[in-house]
This record gives sequence, structure tokens and C-alpha cells, in this order.
Amino acid sequence: MAQKPSIPKGTRDFGPQEMSRRNYIFNTIREVYSLYGFQQIETPAMENLSTLMGKYGEEGDKLLFKILNSGDFLRGIYSDDLAAGATGHLAAQLCEKGLRYDLTVPFARYVVQHREELALPFRRYQIQPVWRADRPQKGRYREFYQCDADVVGSDSLLCEVELMQIIDEVFRRFGIRVCIKINNRKILSGIAEMIGEADKIVDITVAIDKLDKIGLDAVNEELREDGISEEAIQKLQPIINLSGTNEEKIATMRQALAGSEVGQKGIDEVEYVLNKFNGARGKEQENTSCPSNPLAPCPLPPAPNIELDLTLARGLNYYTGCIFEVKALDVEIGSITGGGRYDNLTGIFGMPGISGVGISFGADRIYDVLNQLDLYPEAVTTATQVLFINFGEKETAYSLPIIAGLRAQGVRCEIYPDASKMKKQMQYANQKAIPFVAMTGETEMAEGKVMLKNMQTGEQKLLTPEELAASI
Amino acid sequence: MAQKPSIPKGTRDFGPQEMSRRNYIFNTIREVYSLYGFQQIETPAMENLSTLMGKYGEEGDKLLFKILNSGDFLRGIYSDDLAAGATGHLAAQLCEKGLRYDLTVPFARYVVQHREELALPFRRYQIQPVWRADRPQKGRYREFYQCDADVVGSDSLLCEVELMQIIDEVFRRFGIRVCIKINNRKILSGIAEMIGEADKIVDITVAIDKLDKIGLDAVNEELREDGISEEAIQKLQPIINLSGTNEEKIATMRQALAGSEVGQKGIDEVEYVLNKFNGARGKEQENTSCPSNPLAPCPLPPAPNIELDLTLARGLNYYTGCIFEVKALDVEIGSITGGGRYDNLTGIFGMPGISGVGISFGADRIYDVLNQLDLYPEAVTTATQVLFINFGEKETAYSLPIIAGLRAQGVRCEIYPDASKMKKQMQYANQKAIPFVAMTGETEMAEGKVMLKNMQTGEQKLLTPEELAASI
Repeated sequence: MAQKPSIPKGTRDFGPQEMSRRNYIFNTIREVYSLYGFQQIETPAMENLSTLMGKYGEEGDKLLFKILNSGDFLRGIYSDDLAAGATGHLAAQLCEKGLRYDLTVPFARYVVQHREELALPFRRYQIQPVWRADRPQKGRYREFYQCDADVVGSDSLLCEVELMQIIDEVFRRFGIRVCIKINNRKILSGIAEMIGEADKIVDITVAIDKLDKIGLDAVNEELREDGISEEAIQKLQPIINLSGTNEEKIATMRQALAGSEVGQKGIDEVEYVLNKFNGARGKEQENTSCPSNPLAPCPLPPAPNIELDLTLARGLNYYTGCIFEVKALDVEIGSITGGGRYDNLTGIFGMPGISGVGISFGADRIYDVLNQLDLYPEAVTTATQVLFINFGEKETAYSLPIIAGLRAQGVRCEIYPDASKMKKQMQYANQKAIPFVAMTGETEMAEGKVMLKNMQTGEQKLLTPEELAASI
Repeated sequence: MAQKPSIPKGTRDFGPQEMSRRNYIFNTIREVYSLYGFQQIETPAMENLSTLMGKYGEEGDKLLFKILNSGDFLRGIYSDDLAAGATGHLAAQLCEKGLRYDLTVPFARYVVQHREELALPFRRYQIQPVWRADRPQKGRYREFYQCDADVVGSDSLLCEVELMQIIDEVFRRFGIRVCIKINNRKILSGIAEMIGEADKIVDITVAIDKLDKIGLDAVNEELREDGISEEAIQKLQPIINLSGTNEEKIATMRQALAGSEVGQKGIDEVEYVLNKFNGARGKEQENTSCPSNPLAPCPLPPAPNIELDLTLARGLNYYTGCIFEVKALDVEIGSITGGGRYDNLTGIFGMPGISGVGISFGADRIYDVLNQLDLYPEAVTTATQVLFINFGEKETAYSLPIIAGLRAQGVRCEIYPDASKMKKQMQYANQKAIPFVAMTGETEMAEGKVMLKNMQTGEQKLLTPEELAASI
């Protein structure tokens, strides 16, 4: 009779295996963020709607999950308003709070609210779920995690350099081959200036951002529809089609944007960031030793694939300087990380003049890439290491102190709680993919030993309790 | 002009220091749960209201945060209903979803929904925030974390034993001295039977649960008000006042409840759990070596303080067997952990007959206890280990590869992003409590070295890049 319970569409349960994989992703990112001096913060799931509304455009406002006021939520609302059915207006009266839509606006709110306690420049990272009332579809959820790192309170391009190092290091640890794309909004402004369409910068960036997806002809068509002159579109072609090494592209663009001050500034910034990034990978690193074995020389990690891509615009128009995007080389999937510099994040909360730069790892897509390439280290997927078979009261009394000893040495153990049939207990070990099973029957007890069975090879060893841990 | 932004009442921001302390708490609990073969799951923040409503009593229903339906939330609602102002009825029409109120009901829903994939007995742990529209007050929040572990699908008392071991181990790791209180609902039923008031079991447990807070006279007064006969109250006195060792209490109760089958069963269960718990701490453990130093013998940890407390009832009436509660010995605060066995968790979702037992660590109270006793290990509160002073372009170019080398060895480093005045950079190091500052000026560069300053002692050392990591 009872209907099987379910969860709201667009949300997910994460079972044990998914959780250990997701924890591996979050922990890797967390560890690298920490190495760069970033510190974690958390903000509440619920923010005041006044904090959230108007920050994500009209469309974004509609996608906010709003929380019905507690108690008598109709107090003060006239039935006329209700009957009129003006949902937007009414929602604002029924709801004071909403769920976090991203981590950026709550972070800006945090910086302004806690400005007196913060040491600027402030490097924070934040790994929390966000909620959007989007139409759910493949790969798009109503609840998903964001993993952001930002530095606020410094204009220095060293921040950009370090964020690129973080991206490089994280994907190196995952074993995912990537291309890190970089561009600069100031170069895009320079281009708009140069082709005589400075006021159409937004339309132009939106159109050329789609090059990868829709191709050159469609981009040009969209530019025409935006009212960009044919002459300007012609001038744009060599830039959209720019090729060569990053150094060659920079040299070409320096000439092409000779007349644009802002354009030159953008090129300077990109050049500086790329040079410093490469400089940090200098020879010193060849002499440092591996963390895992301090005596072995650490090979220089392979040079990352970094590409100055002038068609990279990133949808969000609050970026003002360098912008980044990361593509996986071996899996067809959208961008798996992105970010950039913004100049007035906290201005919306009355604290202008704070520059910042940040990145965000797309945990759900990284999860898909790691799954497709099967890149998880084995340790990630092993939960319990040994299952002790339950033969009954006497045997359990014998096993418990041995189990306690193993746990004290960091071995993850279980004893099957019931003295069920052997077959059932073995099935349980298989279902949970537990690599070892320990047996303590009459014989083993008489000898003061434990029989340890390797579930993959089938091999059995009779061991003393002291020898156990070393064999697992 | 702009008002300083704020967050909803009863919610909190967690800054870097709070986060590292909270992570220490969660990671410790997580690690111990893993040692016992528990696996993590996560469920969505939003559940269907049909899953949540009616599970927490009438009061609980009111404390659920409800989420306004997206889009045209007034569709299908008659203006008469609106005008009538029946908020309860209307809320159900305006909202299909609500925020998680605890981790138990979502877990029950999870078990039923995923029953085909699960290997029973299923040991899961879950560490996630929950939300309650309670009136905020000191120590009570509208958003707070729960840290639950449960085993479902086994009646075995070994589960109780292991959960007590987990409690013992977690607080040993924290360095918090505790008393673990144990009781059994069946003993309480036996007592009610014995005094001839079997049908008043709920009233009786609710009253004697308050002994600690309101004292004996007030408890007796409440029993009278509940309609318990004077004779029954007199019979109850020696039980409420029971003292002695656990063994003595068990012996006394065996006699007192001689006529009650259920009472004897409860005593058997408690005795079994206490015996097995002590047995697991057997001599074997003395011979196992320390995880930190495999060659040193590991001293047997001090015997935990465990007390059979017949006045322990725990408010929640779904418990059916053993119940647990943990009190800190050195801080005045309510219970910091609790749990027990329940026999029909998943029955509410149409899957009867699944027994389970679980515990829940109160992270917020544990945080308060650790703060009051100042028990955090030093490593927990150190974020960045070295700050490189920024002297300008040339010096930065020299420092970057050295920093990269340190990070490759696991040292958490920052370089101050701007070439600001020395004083400002040193201030930043002090504010963030960074223990070392590294300087690379003209002299150091000429010698290929780095000046490392210990910020606590003021001591300075001139070191090669290779020598740096060892000195930090």
C-alpha cells in the first residue's frame, strides 16, 4: 500500500561509493587550497532575500528557492493582494529568506559584514552546496556543490599566477590532462575599440564566446544581428582565427591593438601572468625532493597546457581582468573550472573599491571525468578492510580485543553482528567489496591465532593477532 | 547609506578559525566511524514535505522550514482559501518541499528507497546540517550540524557495544573526560509493570528523565499529577535512588524486577553490552603497538566511566532497547552525545521489521566544551606556515620557484601579493598568526639563500632553499 518514498526532482542521494569519490575530489581541492594559504569559511544555507535578490539578473531572481515565513505567514497581507495573484510581489511578502544560489554573493556579504575582523588581502575557500530552481536535465541539478577560492583586497597579478598554479596542481593530482585557457577582458575591450564598436563590447563577447559551440559562420551571423557593422566583423576575423604559440599571439595582438590603451594593458597582464607562472616552475623544483620519499629527486611535473584564447569571454559580465577556463583533453564535456578578476564585488553591499580574483572547480563535472577515465586511486574505493566472521558468543569474545587492537593501529574493521550462516556473511563481504575476511573458529582459538583470507586471491594465512595488521 | 548586510537570525557564519576547529571535530568523528566500518552518505537538503510531515509531532510540523513552490505558486489555489487564512492548510498548497529537520527521517527514507542496493546490516554515518524554525536562543540555532551513525538490519547487541566503543574512542581522542550513561527501555517497562502502572510508562519515563534537572521532590510531584498512585510512587523510590557499582545495580534490579519478563530482558541486554564492552578492552590491547610508533608498546587507555543510570529515559519515545547519553565531566553543559535502539524506523515508509541502533554527536556542544577546556591540538589552529615577504618584481621572481618547492613538500606557503611596506606585511603575518616569515632581499639573492624568521622567538636563520622545509 505504502508508496515508495522519493526525493524532489533535481536532487540526489549520495551513497557510500559516490561519497568516497566525492570526498576524494573535495579533499584534493581542499588540500591544494591550503598549501596556498587559503582558509575555509562557511555561510548559512539561508540568506535574507534582500541579500540575494537583484544579484543574478531577472532570470536569477526567479530561480531562487524562497522559504515561507514561519508562523502566521499571512499576517499583514491583504486578501486583495492574494486574489490579484501577483506572484512576484506576493512572494516577497510571504518569504524573507532564500537558499544560497552561489557562493560569490554570500562571500561578498561575508566580507562586508566581517570587514573589521578580516586581514586583507583575504584568501578564502568555500565548499558548500547551492540551490537553483532550474529545470533539471542531464548534468544539471537543483542542488549541487561549488568549490570556490578567492583573494580579495589585492590588485596584484600574483594572485592570478597562484590560482593558475592551483588549477595546474589540482588536475595533476587527479591525473586529468587539461588545457587551461586564459584571456583578459581588457583585451576584449581593446578589440571592440579597435573595430570601432566599443559600446557593443558585451554583444561581441557574448557572440565570440560561442565559437566553440556554434562555429565561425554562426558567430558572424549573430554579430550582424547585434548590429555590428560588416567592416567591424571583417576586422574581427583575424582575431577570432588567431593561431600560433602564446608568445606569437601576444606579439600579433600587441600590433593589432597598438592604438588601444586598455588593449595594451590587457596584453601586459596576460604576458606577466604567463611569465611568472612559467618562472615559478623554474629549476629549483628539480632539486626538491618528493613528499612521499624525501631522498628521491622529484621529477619536474609535465608542463601544463596553457592557451591564450581570445574567444574566451565567460558569460558573467562582472569580470574585469584575466579570465580562466579549463577543458579536459580526454573527455567531451564543458568547462570543468573557471574564474577571473572582478573589480567591485562588495560594491553591491556598500563597500566599493575591493578588487578580487577567484576560481571555481566544477565538482560534478570533475566527478564525471574521473569516472569516465577511471582515475580513482584504489584506496579511495576501499572502505572496511577486514570483516571478522561471527561464529557465536565464544568466538566473538575472542575476536573483540583483537579487533580493538587492529583499530588502534588504524585498520578499518567490522565484525558481522549476527552469527548468521557463513554463506550470508561472505556474501556481505563481497557486496561491500571488503578485501580481507578474518576467521576465529575452534582451531584458531586453540592456537591463539586468526585465519586471514584474501578475498581476491582466495589465499588463507594462519597468523597471530600481532602479525595481522602487517598482512592487510 | 548602504545598510550593513546581515544573516537570518539563528544562523551563523563560520570564519577560518571556527572552521578549522569544526573540521577537527568532524574529521575526528569521521575517522573513528570509518575504523568501525561505517560509510558516509548524504541526502538532499530539501525533502518532499510528505516525507517530513507527521514525523516529529504537531510541534515539529510547525518547526519545518517550507519552500515556496517555484513559478506560479498560486495556481490551483482558490482565493477563498487564501482569504480564510488557514495557514496550515494553505502552506501545504503553497509548498511541496521542506528543509531537512534531522538526519534520521531522511535516513529511513533513504533505506526504503534504496533497499535493493543496500547490503544489510547497513552501517551508515551522515554529517550534514539540519534546519528548525525554533526560537533562537543561546546555544540553540536554526541551522546546525548533526553527526549520526546508525546500524540498521540487525538485532545484535554487538552493534550497541561498538557504538559505545566509538563514543569512548572519540572522546578519548578529543581529550574530553566523559561519563557514558546507559539504560534500557525494557527495564523502564519492567519498572512500570512492577509498580502496577504499565500503561503509564510514558508519563513515568518523562518524569524521571527530569531527575537531574528538577530534583526528586519535583519528580514525585509530577508523578502524582500524572495520576500515579501513592503506593506506586513509594515503590519507585528505591529505584530512582539506586546506587552502587553497575554490577550492584544490576543485581538489585534483577531481584526487584523478578516478576517482569520484559524487565529481565532489559537487564540481560545491559549486562551483555557492559560485559562485551569490557571484554573488548582485554589484555590483547596491551600488546598492540602505538599507531604513531609501531615499536613502542601502547598503554591501555584509561577505563571509561560508564554508568547504568535508571533515570535516563531520553525524550524520544521511539527507542525500544538500550539508550545512551554522554555527559562531559569537566564542563557544565547538557548531554553531548546520545542514542539508542529503535525497532521500526522504516515502518513509517512501508518497510516494517527493520531494527536499528544509532548515536548522534552534538557537534556544537562538543565545540563549546573543547573551547572551554582549550583542548585543540596546535596543528589545528595553524593555517599558513610561512609568509614570503614581497620586496618587488626581482625578489618575487626569485621566491616563486622556492615557494613551489616548499609546497611540493607539503609546506603551506603564501607570498604577500603586493610589494607593500614591510610593516604592513609583518602585520598581516601577525594577524593570521603565521609562525614563520621568509625574506629574500639583495643579500639573500646574491648568496642563493633565504632568511627565515621565527615569529615567536624572533630568531633569524640564513638557509638554502633545500634547508628551508626542515626548519619549519
